[in-house]
Amino acid sequence: MSASKLKNIVPLLDRVLVQRIKAQEKTASGILIPEKAQEALNEGYVVATGKGALDKDGKHIPTQVDVGDKVLLPPYGGSSVKINSEEFLLFRDSEILAKVTDN
Amino acid sequence: MSASKLKNIVPLLDRVLVQRIKAQEKTASGILIPEKAQEALNEGYVVATGKGALDKDGKHIPTQVDVGDKVLLPPYGGSSVKINSEEFLLFRDSEILAKVTDN
Amino acid sequence: MSASKLKNIVPLLDRVLVQRIKAQEKTASGILIPEKAQEALNEGYVVATGKGALDKDGKHIPTQVDVGDKVLLPPYGGSSVKINSEEFLLFRDSEILAKVTDN
Amino acid sequence: MSASKLKNIVPLLDRVLVQRIKAQEKTASGILIPEKAQEALNEGYVVATGKGALDKDGKHIPTQVDVGDKVLLPPYGGSSVKINSEEFLLFRDSEILAKVTDN
Amino acid sequence: MSASKLKNIVPLLDRVLVQRIKAQEKTASGILIPEKAQEALNEGYVVATGKGALDKDGKHIPTQVDVGDKVLLPPYGGSSVKINSEEFLLFRDSEILAKVTDN
Amino acid sequence: MSASKLKNIVPLLDRVLVQRIKAQEKTASGILIPEKAQEALNEGYVVATGKGALDKDGKHIPTQVDVGDKVLLPPYGGSSVKINSEEFLLFRDSEILAKVTDN
Amino acid sequence: MSASKLKNIVPLLDRVLVQRIKAQEKTASGILIPEKAQEALNEGYVVATGKGALDKDGKHIPTQVDVGDKVLLPPYGGSSVKINSEEFLLFRDSEILAKVTDN
Repeated sequence: MSASKLKNIVPLLDRVLVQRIKAQEKTASGILIPEKAQEALNEGYVVATGKGALDKDGKHIPTQVDVGDKVLLPPYGGSSVKINSEEFLLFRDSEILAKVTDN
Repeated sequence: MSASKLKNIVPLLDRVLVQRIKAQEKTASGILIPEKAQEALNEGYVVATGKGALDKDGKHIPTQVDVGDKVLLPPYGGSSVKINSEEFLLFRDSEILAKVTDN
Repeated sequence: MSASKLKNIVPLLDRVLVQRIKAQEKTASGILIPEKAQEALNEGYVVATGKGALDKDGKHIPTQVDVGDKVLLPPYGGSSVKINSEEFLLFRDSEILAKVTDN
Repeated sequence: MSASKLKNIVPLLDRVLVQRIKAQEKTASGILIPEKAQEALNEGYVVATGKGALDKDGKHIPTQVDVGDKVLLPPYGGSSVKINSEEFLLFRDSEILAKVTDN
Repeated sequence: MSASKLKNIVPLLDRVLVQRIKAQEKTASGILIPEKAQEALNEGYVVATGKGALDKDGKHIPTQVDVGDKVLLPPYGGSSVKINSEEFLLFRDSEILAKVTDN
Repeated sequence: MSASKLKNIVPLLDRVLVQRIKAQEKTASGILIPEKAQEALNEGYVVATGKGALDKDGKHIPTQVDVGDKVLLPPYGGSSVKINSEEFLLFRDSEILAKVTDN
Repeated sequence: MSASKLKNIVPLLDRVLVQRIKAQEKTASGILIPEKAQEALNEGYVVATGKGALDKDGKHIPTQVDVGDKVLLPPYGGSSVKINSEEFLLFRDSEILAKVTDN
């Protein structure tokens, strides 16, 4: 899915659109891992965020995560949506457990 | 259903009236898709909105979505209403997951 | 039921008394519709309203609907009450989904 | 039960003591209605009220109903109490659905 | 149980210690009532009260009932405690339904 | 367990660490009471307290109980923790029912 | 797992990342304890903390625990996450029962 396509999804309030990282289908040495043995990963990339929830003065509270962040996802929750036959998840910003940085 | 007819439905507070987009009944090449194989779509168009929920000073907080917006709907929730034998859904503004823009 | 009788019911706080519109018993051409085929209507008329819920300063917040309004009712909820062997429903003002205007 | 006896019950906070109106045991023409056919009435008389719930400054918010009011009761809820082997109900003031006036 | 003993129980916050009034074990004429026929009474005496719940400024809100008050108890709730093999009940002040005065 | 050891447990916020008083294993005259006949006691001693919950300005609200207090425990709730193979209970300060004073 | 690796996990808001202390696998004298007899420990080390929950002015409230703290964990709750095939737990700061200090 091209990044340009996802620009068209604008999550509302404090929602963030996340794409789950797919489990590895091959071992490091290239051997295919049968689907049942693939570990369900709880990591994903933020592909779009809302402007944030409203505070009592009607202003948006910025989200804790930004587009491009690698994040830890909670084991349950989130609304599954299908965009161009790819699966995405919408979470509340406050449901995202942690950011994962690579350096 | 003519647009003029729907002008007569005035959602209250932060409710928005949505018409779900119907699943495609034919493939791109014109072959009919049997009903069971049609994918349930979670997209719809906003056809009417309320003035918004009341804040603690009794003023209406404007809704996040407007008439004509294409939106992503949550997988459950919403009150189903029938107007002129067509099915519509009433959601709280804050339940709408995201806007979908086409450019 | 005469309107004068219903003047005697004074809903408290933000409650509104609604009379559900009965399903059509005949088709446009006058043929009787068997009871099972009659569609349960989710529309009603507001016959009485309370002064509104209390805000934190003890003042009544006016209801969103008024006596005479045609309204869309939620699919569940409301307290059923019988007045002179006619069925009425008491809803919270905020539970009423939408107003229906006829022009 | 004499009114003087009930003066001794002082509901606390926003509670109101209600005596349910008994269902008619005879038809207008004097024929006894068997107990099963007697309609359960959701009307009662307020026999005592508390001083009202406390607001955030510690002052009592007056109840919406007064002693002597004929009221519509919700279909469930309320604490049943027995005073001198007569049955009474204690409701929160805000649970009372409506007042019924007779003129 | 001597009153002096109960002085040693100091309920915390808005809790009140209540001793349920025992059901009559004899009729007015002195005949013993079998235990099963004894009516469970929902009345009791307040034997100790806390200083009250804390308001947002950290001050105690005085309880609605005082030591010595005869009160109506809710049909459920309360924590049962045993002091010197006698049964007592701890309720939140706001759970007590009503005071019963004897004059 | 030496008191010095328990100094090392620092409950967080409004939590209090309590050691339940063991049921008597002998009668006053020294006869052993079989374990099943021993009454489960709902009394304990506070062995450590947190600094208190945070108010809206971020300050700690002092707990109602202090180290050394003899207290009445609720019949359920509390987190059981094992320290040096002895059983302790962590309660929220507001869950403690009452203090028990001995004079 | 090297400490440097865990620097990459940044819990959001008031979440804290904890590694549970493993149960002893040998007795003091070196005899292996069979897995079933190993006691499940409710202690852990804080390996990362978020900046804290947001107060109503949008500022972070500092967490009660810090990286390196030895803590008592609640018997249930927490989200289990796997980082480099090691098990970690994410808790809300306010769910951590107590700190354990060793001096």
